[in-house]
Amino acid sequence: MNEIEQRLADLSLTLPTPAAPVANYVPYTRAGTLLFISGQLPFGADGKIAAAHSGRVGAEVTPEAAQQAARLCAVNILAQAKAALGLLDNVRCLKLIGFVAAAPDFIAIPAVVNGASDLMVAVLGDRGKHARSAVGVAQLPLGCAVEVEATLEIV
Amino acid sequence: MNEIEQRLADLSLTLPTPAAPVANYVPYTRAGTLLFISGQLPFGADGKIAAAHSGRVGAEVTPEAAQQAARLCAVNILAQAKAALGLLDNVRCLKLIGFVAAAPDFIAIPAVVNGASDLMVAVLGDRGKHARSAVGVAQLPLGCAVEVEATLEIV
Amino acid sequence: MNEIEQRLADLSLTLPTPAAPVANYVPYTRAGTLLFISGQLPFGADGKIAAAHSGRVGAEVTPEAAQQAARLCAVNILAQAKAALGLLDNVRCLKLIGFVAAAPDFIAIPAVVNGASDLMVAVLGDRGKHARSAVGVAQLPLGCAVEVEATLEIV
Repeated sequence: MNEIEQRLADLSLTLPTPAAPVANYVPYTRAGTLLFISGQLPFGADGKIAAAHSGRVGAEVTPEAAQQAARLCAVNILAQAKAALGLLDNVRCLKLIGFVAAAPDFIAIPAVVNGASDLMVAVLGDRGKHARSAVGVAQLPLGCAVEVEATLEIV
Repeated sequence: MNEIEQRLADLSLTLPTPAAPVANYVPYTRAGTLLFISGQLPFGADGKIAAAHSGRVGAEVTPEAAQQAARLCAVNILAQAKAALGLLDNVRCLKLIGFVAAAPDFIAIPAVVNGASDLMVAVLGDRGKHARSAVGVAQLPLGCAVEVEATLEIV
Repeated sequence: MNEIEQRLADLSLTLPTPAAPVANYVPYTRAGTLLFISGQLPFGADGKIAAAHSGRVGAEVTPEAAQQAARLCAVNILAQAKAALGLLDNVRCLKLIGFVAAAPDFIAIPAVVNGASDLMVAVLGDRGKHARSAVGVAQLPLGCAVEVEATLEIV
């Protein structure tokens, strides 16, 4: 078991079969050493969006549930990266953009997106440390509370 | 007539003169083999934003009209790429971000952005298959219903 | 004094100590000649967000104040780039995404983001000319009116 697999095991985390895109695009593209991962939604291990992860944070969705949703988005980013590359040993996370469906007046957006950022560092270690933008948006696909896209580097 | 020109002809599509930026920036920048295209608005062949493409999807703008607006954004991305490179034969679409001005409760955002994704694949074939994020936002420049930005690769 | 330092002096601009990320990520990552700068908020020279830069543009925040906020975001982008590279002489701005917290019906988003774009060109000259997307969003971290992220090139 290598280092990444050990961390996944320590987190009791199994990467799911990556979700198929919900529309006419592909889950990732590669250009040289850059790997662009499509915006990932918080599909769970059962391939479904939990009710707790649907709606706007600060209204139907609690901040805690939203952070879990962001974590799932990051798990799905890693699942796509593994599908692209076969293993995660040479993946570095360059940048995340976290989109949070936010109720009016909900501004604790960074804490929500931390669910994704923390998972990246937990699994990839120093190579998980990334640049990031976090924004509160009006609506996300399928009514999800969080969507996260990633730019990765193959090192 | 090459393959790309043939596809454009099959789609009865003429690439317009690219729109000038609506503010102080440039339509594209190139770094090595990457070509970054500024967020494109749904300017039509007449250089105007149609009334049907102004406003929020799910309120003033129908989903069908929004999909057409997204298609126009993609046409304008290709027009900018042609202006940058002279021809489209060596262009690959790596990533799109589709921003959709969405009315509260309008969540069929992926179908709207498909207007852009489908056009990319229709014109560029396999090289049009891209990673993508789609988000519903509060407002877009000039009150447009859709804005799409692109990261392209010169192959 | 080199050209960039001269321009900063002409603008009476001192780059601040870069703001620490407000959550678990890093201010920038580098991959080859690309430098990804995390979304920057309008922290002032005093390390604080001015009251005039908190809230939604078109409601609590005036368009003029928002343009100043966007300018501060760009100043902070340059401060991060200087922290990353030591000096700004070999920095080119490839792309900005400007996120503006917009009140309903506020659509003059490009003019707001010009505050960032103009500063980039004022400091970096031709190497400051960038591709750009500007979008109006529901909420930004800490309730800020503007957030700007950047992709830079080391030339």
